[in-house]
Amino acid sequence: MHPHITGRTRLYGLVGDPLTAAKSPQLLNQIFIEQRADAVCVPFWVKAEDLSAFVAGARALRNLSGLLVTMPHKQRMLDYVDELHPTASRVGALNVIRCEEDGRWVGAIFDGVGCVLGMQWEGNHPANKSVLLVGAGGAGRAIAFAVAAAGARTLTLSDVDEQRAADLAKSVAAETGCITHSGPPDPHGFEVVINATPLGMNANDAMPVNPERLAPGTIVVDIINAPEPTQLRRAAHARGCRTQDGGPMHEGQAVHALRFLGFDYRPAGRSAPDDGVLFAPATNASR
Amino acid sequence: MHPHITGRTRLYGLVGDPLTAAKSPQLLNQIFIEQRADAVCVPFWVKAEDLSAFVAGARALRNLSGLLVTMPHKQRMLDYVDELHPTASRVGALNVIRCEEDGRWVGAIFDGVGCVLGMQWEGNHPANKSVLLVGAGGAGRAIAFAVAAAGARTLTLSDVDEQRAADLAKSVAAETGCITHSGPPDPHGFEVVINATPLGMNANDAMPVNPERLAPGTIVVDIINAPEPTQLRRAAHARGCRTQDGGPMHEGQAVHALRFLGFDYRPAGRSAPDDGVLFAPATNASR
Repeated sequence: MHPHITGRTRLYGLVGDPLTAAKSPQLLNQIFIEQRADAVCVPFWVKAEDLSAFVAGARALRNLSGLLVTMPHKQRMLDYVDELHPTASRVGALNVIRCEEDGRWVGAIFDGVGCVLGMQWEGNHPANKSVLLVGAGGAGRAIAFAVAAAGARTLTLSDVDEQRAADLAKSVAAETGCITHSGPPDPHGFEVVINATPLGMNANDAMPVNPERLAPGTIVVDIINAPEPTQLRRAAHARGCRTQDGGPMHEGQAVHALRFLGFDYRPAGRSAPDDGVLFAPATNASR
Repeated sequence: MHPHITGRTRLYGLVGDPLTAAKSPQLLNQIFIEQRADAVCVPFWVKAEDLSAFVAGARALRNLSGLLVTMPHKQRMLDYVDELHPTASRVGALNVIRCEEDGRWVGAIFDGVGCVLGMQWEGNHPANKSVLLVGAGGAGRAIAFAVAAAGARTLTLSDVDEQRAADLAKSVAAETGCITHSGPPDPHGFEVVINATPLGMNANDAMPVNPERLAPGTIVVDIINAPEPTQLRRAAHARGCRTQDGGPMHEGQAVHALRFLGFDYRPAGRSAPDDGVLFAPATNASR
């Protein structure tokens, strides 16, 4: 069941390469039907080398209302939007673009606030907690700013590239006021441990932290969204930790991205996000 | 009810301005559902001045399989395709583009053969008949070649621009071998009279031919597709002529255009088109 498409229907596109495993057209179209929106989401399969031509053509579409952006375009697309939401300028990537009626494109990425929303839904909100975040790449950057802004008591960042972790800690502290350090990936003494590295995507990856240093009751969040629990989650669970996989973060970022596009999406049994943190006017975002 | 859209779904677009009254997305999507094709047709609202940028972007879409082209792009789009079907090179316009797997775009227009198919469905096939065709513009050009190729005994072309009618008659005769003349719009003595002018679109238009010169039993085809019969059709009907409106031609061109795109479409109660005439290899069409 999908939206009824006429000459007046508004377009949303998912742009990336490959798109064979994409799920977002299904999600958006379901929401359009439920909310009786005259809109449809379709895949735009575009190779990296064709991005510039694609953007020129997409800007010629008077009925294009938004784009979801996936690999390999999440960084390069920054150069093609007119305005960046703070989420995107902090992370250095975007995954959603809102096409305004006046033709301006505004880019954003909600991985960080989506992670916090997912933690809140699972009863694992980081407010007033000591947090170790391992991995200072794209996802790690997004989560660092969001966890700090959500009121973590302290935030410790760890990365194999120590300088990258230190630089990010400085930026997060300056922007949020959260007490932020960088250090080794030792989970001992933290109330919350978040894996934002790719370790665990493959079955024989090393674990991002040593599970023997986890205390019972520690909240262990692994953003890897796999059908099977990662080795880290299994080990943490065995030690009596609370664990959370990548699913709630994925749902959380979808809630925020859809709200940014003007649609109210609420996964079954989930509460609405807190508007205050995220949707302050993006006055500093103009480029 | 519309096609189930995933990351693998093939795209068809209707490109034009405006698109508010367009019906073709509904028709195509209905066919895609019936034939279980993993495809969807969406509107691409593009202004005349943006056509070049649109084409650059559309060519970057690896999952674009075809375009339907409507006003104001039907002539200018000729410059953007790689190959023209003979239907399009004769008429100097196109309204459908097939995007081949190797990236080549092939343009065509099926108004002429669609008109003949519509006449055949209605029992008004022009084979072996004397035909007067009034109007040598875009639609008239298309119909002239198709009626001649379909075996009209003679074809007389009439236009307010007498030179345009004479030039077209010469081209049609040279290409089809049909005995083709140009002359005044006097329907006296013809077995078939076709109006391919816009006269009749507005209620107080003059009639394209003098109905008092129509003999009972003459076939009168008015390609104007309006809810109400045109003044010509009413007058012809009153004189005992067989009349036909623009509907069968519209259905007929849709059948041919969809077949060109690879889909078998048959309106209720209609027979299949004769492949022989139209779908000979388009070897002379390369540009």
